[in-house]
Amino acid sequence: QGSVQLTGLVDVYAGSMKAPGDASRTAVLGSGGLTTSWFGFTGTEDLGGGLKAGFALTSFMRADTGAPGRFNGDPFFSRDANVSLSGGFGTVRLGRWMAPNFLPSVLANPLGDSFTFSPLIVHKNVGIRDPLRWAPTTPADTGWSNQIAYSTPDIGGFKANLQYQFGEQAGDNGKKNVGANFFYAGGPLLLTGYYERVQIGNPGQGAYLGTTRKDWMLGAAYDLQAAKPYLSYGQAEDEQLPGKARTLQVGVAVPLGAGKVLASWAKTDLTAGDVNRKTLTVGYDHHLSKRTDVYAMVMNDKITNLSTGNSVGLGIRHRF
Amino acid sequence: QGSVQLTGLVDVYAGSMKAPGDASRTAVLGSGGLTTSWFGFTGTEDLGGGLKAGFALTSFMRADTGAPGRFNGDPFFSRDANVSLSGGFGTVRLGRWMAPNFLPSVLANPLGDSFTFSPLIVHKNVGIRDPLRWAPTTPADTGWSNQIAYSTPDIGGFKANLQYQFGEQAGDNGKKNVGANFFYAGGPLLLTGYYERVQIGNPGQGAYLGTTRKDWMLGAAYDLQAAKPYLSYGQAEDEQLPGKARTLQVGVAVPLGAGKVLASWAKTDLTAGDVNRKTLTVGYDHHLSKRTDVYAMVMNDKITNLSTGNSVGLGIRHRF
Amino acid sequence: QGSVQLTGLVDVYAGSMKAPGDASRTAVLGSGGLTTSWFGFTGTEDLGGGLKAGFALTSFMRADTGAPGRFNGDPFFSRDANVSLSGGFGTVRLGRWMAPNFLPSVLANPLGDSFTFSPLIVHKNVGIRDPLRWAPTTPADTGWSNQIAYSTPDIGGFKANLQYQFGEQAGDNGKKNVGANFFYAGGPLLLTGYYERVQIGNPGQGAYLGTTRKDWMLGAAYDLQAAKPYLSYGQAEDEQLPGKARTLQVGVAVPLGAGKVLASWAKTDLTAGDVNRKTLTVGYDHHLSKRTDVYAMVMNDKITNLSTGNSVGLGIRHRF
Repeated sequence: QGSVQLTGLVDVYAGSMKAPGDASRTAVLGSGGLTTSWFGFTGTEDLGGGLKAGFALTSFMRADTGAPGRFNGDPFFSRDANVSLSGGFGTVRLGRWMAPNFLPSVLANPLGDSFTFSPLIVHKNVGIRDPLRWAPTTPADTGWSNQIAYSTPDIGGFKANLQYQFGEQAGDNGKKNVGANFFYAGGPLLLTGYYERVQIGNPGQGAYLGTTRKDWMLGAAYDLQAAKPYLSYGQAEDEQLPGKARTLQVGVAVPLGAGKVLASWAKTDLTAGDVNRKTLTVGYDHHLSKRTDVYAMVMNDKITNLSTGNSVGLGIRHRF
Repeated sequence: QGSVQLTGLVDVYAGSMKAPGDASRTAVLGSGGLTTSWFGFTGTEDLGGGLKAGFALTSFMRADTGAPGRFNGDPFFSRDANVSLSGGFGTVRLGRWMAPNFLPSVLANPLGDSFTFSPLIVHKNVGIRDPLRWAPTTPADTGWSNQIAYSTPDIGGFKANLQYQFGEQAGDNGKKNVGANFFYAGGPLLLTGYYERVQIGNPGQGAYLGTTRKDWMLGAAYDLQAAKPYLSYGQAEDEQLPGKARTLQVGVAVPLGAGKVLASWAKTDLTAGDVNRKTLTVGYDHHLSKRTDVYAMVMNDKITNLSTGNSVGLGIRHRF
Repeated sequence: QGSVQLTGLVDVYAGSMKAPGDASRTAVLGSGGLTTSWFGFTGTEDLGGGLKAGFALTSFMRADTGAPGRFNGDPFFSRDANVSLSGGFGTVRLGRWMAPNFLPSVLANPLGDSFTFSPLIVHKNVGIRDPLRWAPTTPADTGWSNQIAYSTPDIGGFKANLQYQFGEQAGDNGKKNVGANFFYAGGPLLLTGYYERVQIGNPGQGAYLGTTRKDWMLGAAYDLQAAKPYLSYGQAEDEQLPGKARTLQVGVAVPLGAGKVLASWAKTDLTAGDVNRKTLTVGYDHHLSKRTDVYAMVMNDKITNLSTGNSVGLGIRHRF
């Protein structure tokens, strides 16, 4: 009956991976070298009088094995499951959607939302486990379930989201996640930032974390045509744990031929424990078309007292 | 190659919920305030000579968290997974499809298939657990797997379905589910009813219940234009348990502006144990378009010897 | 943005089944009498200069219960999850795709990819368990995850695939699956064959099998118009187990009316243990249209020292 878009992205790479502390390299065929693979259904309906209704049902998946979600236990529509009303007042959205931390982090580094090769995203969102060598600094996933989000209209290049996740804790309605982010686009300049205060885990039905975690970041990018530099700084803390995680990231994208040279360096200091992580990625992303690109990435990754990691990947990313 | 429809519905509400016996209220963002959210693929093919082939693959999901199914363990295509042949003789359908109880129950009350706010549907199909305070009176889900269903053609406004679910019990082919329902639409009058005899659980592969359950209901609605009253009465029993569950429901839908005031009251008597449940819902459903509506519902819910439940919800429902 | 195809097939049958060694018959409504039911999304993009990008995300499912996958634990996109680049050089594909054994086995017998009634496919790919009475002779599934596949262009009717599955075993990059297959189509003649050497289990993330398994098959078919005979012979072995499994299959398809009579007989000898299996299927597949057919199949199935199995099924298959 409506106009439904069936859309998505498949990104698969062949790589040789060694995380900090790994005893040996592993040859892999992996999903999501530059962007987490996904597919889904979206649509909007014009209700008249400037009003619009919309929905999004989108799923991350692992295109190397065909498994649904980003990891075992991820809900099927782990990327989006929401319905919205938009108008001159902005947009009100109900359901599962991006967390406040996600889009600012993606826009503030040249490797975007790469959970494999972006130093900023890897520090914030990807654990190294068995044994635990790195815990993500982001409080609770890059998507929130059970969410009401208000998005402002675009006001002279400025937009913001105010986000609230119901904790759904029987007898304790005070438990919740709250956060906000903003985006300013003015000519070549992009400014962005977010703040989160989190008590509920994600994804899934949501369990009380037993603590309160706070996280913020500010980021900027400036398009000089010959190069686009990126900068971000942020800080995360857990009220049950000593110290903070402070992350600085600098990066640059340099147009070259039908693609871009991408480089990004991030350093995270864990102030309690005298541990830091320094990660540098350099690569080239070559566009075969607007929808399809191939890429080669090299990442060097160091954590205090662990053997250095070095990973390389060669992949294809196709949007549909 | 064919003409596939990609279609569905996303319904999300913000609510404050208290079931009978709950110690406290819980603020929630929930899926399916008025209709269980779903999406799927359907299609038909004209075979010539009045014959048609068709299929349906449709999935319930929880649009608040992105989880598939109505609950953990629900099969992915929990709503429909079937193929059919239609002609002048009617339709023969093979696979997973609605149980006989479902559509008559939906049509005989003004709140339709709301598993959150329809008193009739809530009594029949929604348990209150931990500890067990209410067991659904419907014998085995609102959908049946492993089913052969025969649907009559429309004969002067009258239609019926004869339904058989294979038990697939090795060495005991006598175990099965059988049932039938009918619909008569004549001008402003709707009459409907069903009967089920159930030995196999649903959803999923189907396990023998260890008992035989029977359930029937008769329902009616009459469209007076200024108001549409609804009435239903039915009875359920389990041969292993004493007594019966008898459910009476009355309701009304009153057009008002671009929407309808909806009210429904149901009472179920559990004859063994001197327990009853009385539930009243009143609300307003306002259409922004044919495909999108917003609603506000209030439900009062009492079970003998338990504290009274009171729930309210405010939601958006969007069809695509 | 692109041109995505939403496509698939629903095949459901009613049957009375008795596998070798079963104590009794079971009446079932089953999925995939002739073809495993599936749905999915595929697309290609013309990149210019003879280059094409493509993707496939396709899912097997059980249309009798609505469950995803071919069995519990199968990944959601168990059929395909891959991205590819094609040109004059052929095609390079990354992700989950068919194993080398699959397509040659399908083309070398008249019952195609029927996991229910094709003697060849049943011997190679379908276990009889509880207790174990038959282990599939194919080393590791009909699809491989974590795969790089190179497909040659069509050279005078000849095509081949070279396939490599990363083992992703930390510290042991030598563990892997490798294989190849070929197809020659020249007028009425089809020749096909494959070889596999397998150390990694499928589907899923892939675990080391603890052994090396090898498998090969050669097959042919010749279209005489009045009848199309089929022939295949192959052999499988496991380096940890004594003996080999040798499978001979002969079959024929005879056009009759708007359909075909199909017959196939397969015999597998397990050389260690003096056990063999002999299976014969005869049936009729009647096309109502190019997209929709109905079928009736009878299968007789004998394994040394087990009671004989006899199964019949009547089904509908619909492509969309």
